[in-house]
Amino acid sequence: MTYTIGVDIGGTNTDLGIVDENGRIAARRHYPTNAYTELAPYIATMMQMVEELMQEVGASSVAGIGIGAPNGNYYTGCVDNAPNLTIKGVLDFGKEIHKYRDVPVVLSNDANAAAYGEYVYGGAKGMQHFIMFTLGTGVGSGIVVDGKLVHGSTGGAGELGHNILVPHGRKCSCGREGCLETYTSARGIVQTYCELKGVPVTADVTSKMIGELAHQGDPVALKTWETVGDQLGLAMANSVTFSAPEAIFLMGGPAQVGDPLLKPLRAAFEKYLLNIYAGSCQIRMSELRANEVAILGAAALVKMGSSR
Amino acid sequence: MTYTIGVDIGGTNTDLGIVDENGRIAARRHYPTNAYTELAPYIATMMQMVEELMQEVGASSVAGIGIGAPNGNYYTGCVDNAPNLTIKGVLDFGKEIHKYRDVPVVLSNDANAAAYGEYVYGGAKGMQHFIMFTLGTGVGSGIVVDGKLVHGSTGGAGELGHNILVPHGRKCSCGREGCLETYTSARGIVQTYCELKGVPVTADVTSKMIGELAHQGDPVALKTWETVGDQLGLAMANSVTFSAPEAIFLMGGPAQVGDPLLKPLRAAFEKYLLNIYAGSCQIRMSELRANEVAILGAAALVKMGSSR
Repeated sequence: MTYTIGVDIGGTNTDLGIVDENGRIAARRHYPTNAYTELAPYIATMMQMVEELMQEVGASSVAGIGIGAPNGNYYTGCVDNAPNLTIKGVLDFGKEIHKYRDVPVVLSNDANAAAYGEYVYGGAKGMQHFIMFTLGTGVGSGIVVDGKLVHGSTGGAGELGHNILVPHGRKCSCGREGCLETYTSARGIVQTYCELKGVPVTADVTSKMIGELAHQGDPVALKTWETVGDQLGLAMANSVTFSAPEAIFLMGGPAQVGDPLLKPLRAAFEKYLLNIYAGSCQIRMSELRANEVAILGAAALVKMGSSR
Repeated sequence: MTYTIGVDIGGTNTDLGIVDENGRIAARRHYPTNAYTELAPYIATMMQMVEELMQEVGASSVAGIGIGAPNGNYYTGCVDNAPNLTIKGVLDFGKEIHKYRDVPVVLSNDANAAAYGEYVYGGAKGMQHFIMFTLGTGVGSGIVVDGKLVHGSTGGAGELGHNILVPHGRKCSCGREGCLETYTSARGIVQTYCELKGVPVTADVTSKMIGELAHQGDPVALKTWETVGDQLGLAMANSVTFSAPEAIFLMGGPAQVGDPLLKPLRAAFEKYLLNIYAGSCQIRMSELRANEVAILGAAALVKMGSSR
């Protein structure tokens, strides 16, 4: 059995697992990212855990280490000044990891990793063209064209959450206005609900709660998901004009609400889709488990290989 | 010297040329597309002209025949029910051409061909990631990712002219509303000018005339190009979030106006571009001559090879 290590670096926690050829996470660990301000001790801990994971499954070697990280750059193998990490600067993960173990290290951003995980282990197996949208704190995306993740000239391709959906619309954390993310992220959904309800946005309203309200038949909550579905459906239909994918996958907390989002989303997608694409592209939910997708996606990157 | 045939099929005329390795059109011909309602005699004329072109340059063989056509499908090698052709139905060009000559036949739509022509013979030489926007009767696009034209799962990828820019905006010929094409095609530009001027849209107003007026300092014409530049700049900035290209190329009649469009376009592009892409992508004019790009683009397709 060949094993691969998948590492998901979040601002708060780092999750890692050892993944077998069938996409099963045979063992996993986690530790606090935000306990570190320097790369070297952070990697020392990671590599200690990699040794433990290998011992646990009886593996004498691994095919590589895949890393999904905020601002992870596939071409350079570095994390470039990620605002939500306590370890600052341009971080060369490959170089640091190679002090411990001479294996391929492949790094990309978390949404790209999720897309590639779907390709290698999930519902996108065998698909040459698809797009993944991840809804969460922000809105991420990963795009596969001709069976390869699109990284673009900079390594930073696939940021459809920052497609401007509404010119001069809501203020975005990126400094611009009207990005898709400001409408269909967890925060955007809360804002829409509060606007429809006519109440100020407060920290005790969550997208999860709005999901529960919708399932109880709350009309404002239902209208919120309809609005979000319409906005996301438009963005997805627009993305089809780019790469004509055979499927668009959706994952992340807010997407778990199910029908209150998916029904208006699919209706809007059909409505906004250019006629030449009618019937050629399905909206599907990710087939990977929410608590596994990040590790599996990171591990999947190793199958793609490094550009270096 | 190796030669390639490039064929540009328009609704009115068919242009073809024999192209040498250096991207020079050594000889060319044209004949009326709309004189034909059947594929066989249309191809018979085409192949007669191919023979003439080969004799004219003293070529005993050609590397292939590339065809840029409305609704041209790269995967099938067919033109699928193009509304502006007098020859109706699904037209299998490769099959018909092979009755005359056993050479590779590669077919794609005209904007894709233009993009690939820029890649093989023009300003995009050596670029792995770029996008071409063509402004004309409509707005077309061709997208190159990792050095390959993006055809998508259907063969119909790269229709950024039908990206919905303004939800519930202008009525588009595709049946939907707010497509980029309704604002930045020749007709869209005329409509914007007439709206700003407060006059009805008439056939005697052209985008060329609005260009001339702008160069004479006409304030309504200048405002028109500013508006168009802003809209196109937004669309281009959005396209960067997809594939992070190193350049976006622009071609077509309305783009020939120059600074009245290009200055506001570049300003809008910078304004709407997500900060992580700042400085990574240039807007450039096509480096191919307007009367050569279609033939060169079609000939370039042969270098890509057929998917069949």
